[in-house]
Amino acid sequence: MKISEFGGEDALVRLIGEKFAAFPGGELILSVGDDAALIDIGEDLLVVTTDLLVENTHFRLDINEPYLIGWKSAAVNISDVAAMGGRPTYSFVSIGLPDVDIEVAEQIYEGLADANAAFGSAIAGGDTVASQEGIVLNVVQLGLVERGLAVQRTGAKVGDAIVVTNTLGDSLAGLQLLLKLGLVEARRASSHCVEKHLKPEPRVAEARAAATTGKVHAMMDLSDGLAVDLPRLCAASGVGARIWAEALPLSSDIHIAAARLDADPVTLAAAGGEDYELLITCAPENTRVVIDAICSRGSSASVIGETTSDLGVRFIRDGVETEFPKGWEHF
Amino acid sequence: MKISEFGGEDALVRLIGEKFAAFPGGELILSVGDDAALIDIGEDLLVVTTDLLVENTHFRLDINEPYLIGWKSAAVNISDVAAMGGRPTYSFVSIGLPDVDIEVAEQIYEGLADANAAFGSAIAGGDTVASQEGIVLNVVQLGLVERGLAVQRTGAKVGDAIVVTNTLGDSLAGLQLLLKLGLVEARRASSHCVEKHLKPEPRVAEARAAATTGKVHAMMDLSDGLAVDLPRLCAASGVGARIWAEALPLSSDIHIAAARLDADPVTLAAAGGEDYELLITCAPENTRVVIDAICSRGSSASVIGETTSDLGVRFIRDGVETEFPKGWEHF
Repeated sequence: MKISEFGGEDALVRLIGEKFAAFPGGELILSVGDDAALIDIGEDLLVVTTDLLVENTHFRLDINEPYLIGWKSAAVNISDVAAMGGRPTYSFVSIGLPDVDIEVAEQIYEGLADANAAFGSAIAGGDTVASQEGIVLNVVQLGLVERGLAVQRTGAKVGDAIVVTNTLGDSLAGLQLLLKLGLVEARRASSHCVEKHLKPEPRVAEARAAATTGKVHAMMDLSDGLAVDLPRLCAASGVGARIWAEALPLSSDIHIAAARLDADPVTLAAAGGEDYELLITCAPENTRVVIDAICSRGSSASVIGETTSDLGVRFIRDGVETEFPKGWEHF
Repeated sequence: MKISEFGGEDALVRLIGEKFAAFPGGELILSVGDDAALIDIGEDLLVVTTDLLVENTHFRLDINEPYLIGWKSAAVNISDVAAMGGRPTYSFVSIGLPDVDIEVAEQIYEGLADANAAFGSAIAGGDTVASQEGIVLNVVQLGLVERGLAVQRTGAKVGDAIVVTNTLGDSLAGLQLLLKLGLVEARRASSHCVEKHLKPEPRVAEARAAATTGKVHAMMDLSDGLAVDLPRLCAASGVGARIWAEALPLSSDIHIAAARLDADPVTLAAAGGEDYELLITCAPENTRVVIDAICSRGSSASVIGETTSDLGVRFIRDGVETEFPKGWEHF
């Protein structure tokens, strides 16, 4: 049976988690199934996360400049550390390279090093190998989180407010523009959406500020889009969710991009993908303190719905319950 | 300039280390340039190492069974932790998969999980993605080492004895048999050499026993072969080396394999590659205690040469100084 017939990426991850991964216990506080693993190392918890990028699956050299491939692969891992409430410390970079120009390798590393430096981390090791199958890039990000500050995706309670940072869908709009128009013309159409896709900014300070309030029940980063990640958070917490279409935060740019793409901005925001914004739940009476904490770090935040005792994720648009816009699965 | 013209893998790693990697300082005790990084986390040191394997560069599905691909990729990382004197704790596995049979993915994970379990480690997370470019596998291995026990490759002193564990060259002979004869016939020719190539056994207990003597000056694992790794250890320590061809430990199987390959067993042992044996230096008067410690854990060990104040690595055969047999570089 092929992976696609078996149920794709999520089904494979479940299988691996059940059959081969360590169950939490002893020093291992959290393993497969959250943004990152947590390991007890004494005073603090060690946060460990890793992401693998493969040429022509996750990036294409005609769209993605080497510097930005490096930046993004570091940023998405830092985002996972942020989503646990952690601060990034060190990253380890494995790179597989065909016999390309040395400048390509250097620019990738420049992007990696800059993203690390921008968020208080540094490259501390890795592996460099030849690859006959295109560029392959794996980043492992370590971080630390104070024992009382670690936030998982399992803690949402029924009746929680659902909060996201900044705006959703810009990255997906940027990707669609790139695929349709190419790099130069897409940037002209909406440099905001294209930058959001190519150079995401992990919300490290925002996540730590939110966690420090002590009021956050569950948190994760939106890497695969609201339509895919919200059901994951709900399943992990044993709750459902109701999202109000009208409450989804949209940038002014996404309207321009959507017009150019002949797409619906709300659908782009709900499906999303690679937003790298935070998805947070907290008791409704605490939304103000959580949102204020996030805003104190330069981002905006808004309530987009609520968790429910009915399992499943519902999408309410113009007062009518409609199907949740489809996200994307890789296989 | 292409990577191959720039000087290949070693030159690229040097460039990255100089321009982009964190210099040791603060919590970071050791970064790019050894078998693994060392990070101060309180009582013990955290050992971090990572290795990337790419289909058709590092393995081929017609030679390498999925189970053994998993085993080997875990084992080589565990070997790096061992080479620092550490004990492996947790591993994080990133895998990129085309839409293959789910059994292929399962067997790879079985190999990974078995190798982890065999050496006291467990899989604690990772990333699973689609790949349009063949199977890609990155393993990150974490470990712990007591502050006083960590051994680096920088500590060799002039006049040290050079010690290796077990026998050298079997893995290279096994690979050559596989490439020449295919899996079935190669196993018939020498199952020992083929197993040594496909299912290496990291020397965790041996390395810790050696480190515990307190007499080891420098240690690393032989991943790229004596001809490549010994110059690395010498360069890191600022010494040269003289290796006695007649002292290289050879298995009885390598003679059989060499005959079948029309090759010289001593050259196979000196070039080597993927031996995953330990390369150790210590004061000559301490060789007995170091070798005894290794033997107490079920391996053999032998002195193969000495470090010198003359830089460079010399190969003495039949009393004559000859060129060191060539190792392999990837680019």
